[in-house]
Amino acid sequence: MKDLFGSPGKVSGLVLRMGQCFFAAASLGVMASASGFSTATAFCYLIASMGLQLLWSFGLACFDVHALRLKRDLHNHIFVSLFVVGDWVTATLSLAASCSSAGVIVLLIKDTTICRTETKLSCDMFQISVGLAFVSWFLLAISSYVMFLLAASA
Amino acid sequence: MKDLFGSPGKVSGLVLRMGQCFFAAASLGVMASASGFSTATAFCYLIASMGLQLLWSFGLACFDVHALRLKRDLHNHIFVSLFVVGDWVTATLSLAASCSSAGVIVLLIKDTTICRTETKLSCDMFQISVGLAFVSWFLLAISSYVMFLLAASA
Repeated sequence: MKDLFGSPGKVSGLVLRMGQCFFAAASLGVMASASGFSTATAFCYLIASMGLQLLWSFGLACFDVHALRLKRDLHNHIFVSLFVVGDWVTATLSLAASCSSAGVIVLLIKDTTICRTETKLSCDMFQISVGLAFVSWFLLAISSYVMFLLAASA
Repeated sequence: MKDLFGSPGKVSGLVLRMGQCFFAAASLGVMASASGFSTATAFCYLIASMGLQLLWSFGLACFDVHALRLKRDLHNHIFVSLFVVGDWVTATLSLAASCSSAGVIVLLIKDTTICRTETKLSCDMFQISVGLAFVSWFLLAISSYVMFLLAASA
């Protein structure tokens, strides 16, 4: 099995996982503290999806720390198969949540005047949250890609 | 290079490409004929994305027909690398377009009463179009996965 950038049990893998955790938590926090997020199902779905991504990435970050401390090799076929499925499912859900929220935001801000007339909606915070969610998805996509390469070359 | 289901230059690959073309064209046609689609940027983006997917899948279907007729082998590294990048970019754009449109539709139908009050919006046709777009994306995702496996095992 190749030893790639961002593979499990390496410092680069741990940094990627911590980045995913940080941006997912930030996106979740900003969206949950924005007033009126519950008016759109897409925003609630974004919170759920970022929560799932936070749990998944945090779990794998702990696993990486464990492997780094004990200098264990995580490149076995069962671990990598489990990681690749989990990573792809989480990445697809995160992209779906980010895009559906982005679609709703464009409708609220650009296509209609809802954001200008309804002052109780924190449209700026919705935008920041979706931006953070896209960054988090991008980092997860890098991890998924590396996992897939590892699984395919195993 | 492995000989997988749905790989380029095989009948299963051609069937997948034709399915992608059919569902992308149907989604595009239904959305373009729905009244009031231009009110949401997400719906216009869905049309553009389905148009791109239609062109891409049609091009590759022609390529498959050519390879099947002349019994040529398309499993060389340059072709597969080109296909894998194109497939992943198109699949990501299609998923993004489908999800953003789905987010907008849920907002129009469930979260607000816009679909009930604005009778000039064809909300049923929006839903059918997004459903077809998801089927098209799913078929493209299968092709992308097979291409990635081929490229990784090359």
